[in-house]
Amino acid sequence: MKNNGLLFVISGPAGAGKGSVAAELVKDDNICLSVSATTRAPRGKEKNGVEYYFYEREQFEKMIAENGFIEYAQYLENYYGTPKKPVDDWRREGKDVILEIEVQGCEIVKKSVPDCVSIFIMPPSMEILEKRLRGRGTETEENVLKRMKRAQEELPLAKNYDYVVVNDVLENCVENVRTIIKAEKLRSQRSCFDI
Amino acid sequence: MKNNGLLFVISGPAGAGKGSVAAELVKDDNICLSVSATTRAPRGKEKNGVEYYFYEREQFEKMIAENGFIEYAQYLENYYGTPKKPVDDWRREGKDVILEIEVQGCEIVKKSVPDCVSIFIMPPSMEILEKRLRGRGTETEENVLKRMKRAQEELPLAKNYDYVVVNDVLENCVENVRTIIKAEKLRSQRSCFDI
Repeated sequence: MKNNGLLFVISGPAGAGKGSVAAELVKDDNICLSVSATTRAPRGKEKNGVEYYFYEREQFEKMIAENGFIEYAQYLENYYGTPKKPVDDWRREGKDVILEIEVQGCEIVKKSVPDCVSIFIMPPSMEILEKRLRGRGTETEENVLKRMKRAQEELPLAKNYDYVVVNDVLENCVENVRTIIKAEKLRSQRSCFDI
Repeated sequence: MKNNGLLFVISGPAGAGKGSVAAELVKDDNICLSVSATTRAPRGKEKNGVEYYFYEREQFEKMIAENGFIEYAQYLENYYGTPKKPVDDWRREGKDVILEIEVQGCEIVKKSVPDCVSIFIMPPSMEILEKRLRGRGTETEENVLKRMKRAQEELPLAKNYDYVVVNDVLENCVENVRTIIKAEKLRSQRSCFDI
């Protein structure tokens, strides 16, 4: 995959800010955000290929059989997954791809794309994480407590990632992730020697 | 070695500019340049602990026996080596240490300090390398040819390093090495989680 774009897996507990980090990164023309596929129906103004790729159940299952997903899972009645092809196409064009996923999904992605680079977005403290979750104003008390419990379980998994970046100030966090992206391109196994 | 400084091994063929890169990096107060030890006599204004640590032969051999060198070699009548203690002391103080060595020495350093980070400084082309070597004005024709031949042998070894940075414009090359230093501090195995 020499001279190709790289796949960066960005993850972290709910409220750590992985979505905000990804949103900043894709402002760069050379960085694309992977779009998930789902079998659930589009809601409101959701457009195919923007929020999700909307697939029929049969189509999704055919793609599973053909090994067409980097990772996929079934929640309730519906499938959700990351199609391989758009990621591979972007990378071949030399674009870097950001895959924002749940903490538990990282190991599956690593198996599917061994040369991916994984970054764990760490909240500065549990207190700040709780404050952020409550600050959303959309979470019930039960949900906040559930997410806090889950974050406690997810934090020790940070050691399985290649990098850990604390999201204290979003701007600094994004800058650190950009530094990682830049440095990863200088890794010897990714260099082309024309000399 | 959590929260400690890191050891960066900087190498590359003669004329690639590793010395210039190291000289720029150590302008940062938090980066120290490792000083070699030798048994040869000081020349001119050379001072102990600046250009070299000047050791007696007996002292040097005692340190070899005590495993006191990261790497050492014997050229002609004299020993040359990198003493472990100053590097360890700096790292414990949280300072990063730059070790500028010959290409062949990298594997030995990696065995001695497994958590070191190795960076190969690559000339932009053989033509430019030759121009730089002649530009020094201090090399005989025989020496230039000898160094070019050696560079040809050394370039394929770049793949054994963690990173490869092309030294086209010194300023950009130094900036890239600084990016690597910053990113390496974000690696998960080096992070402390206070959370």
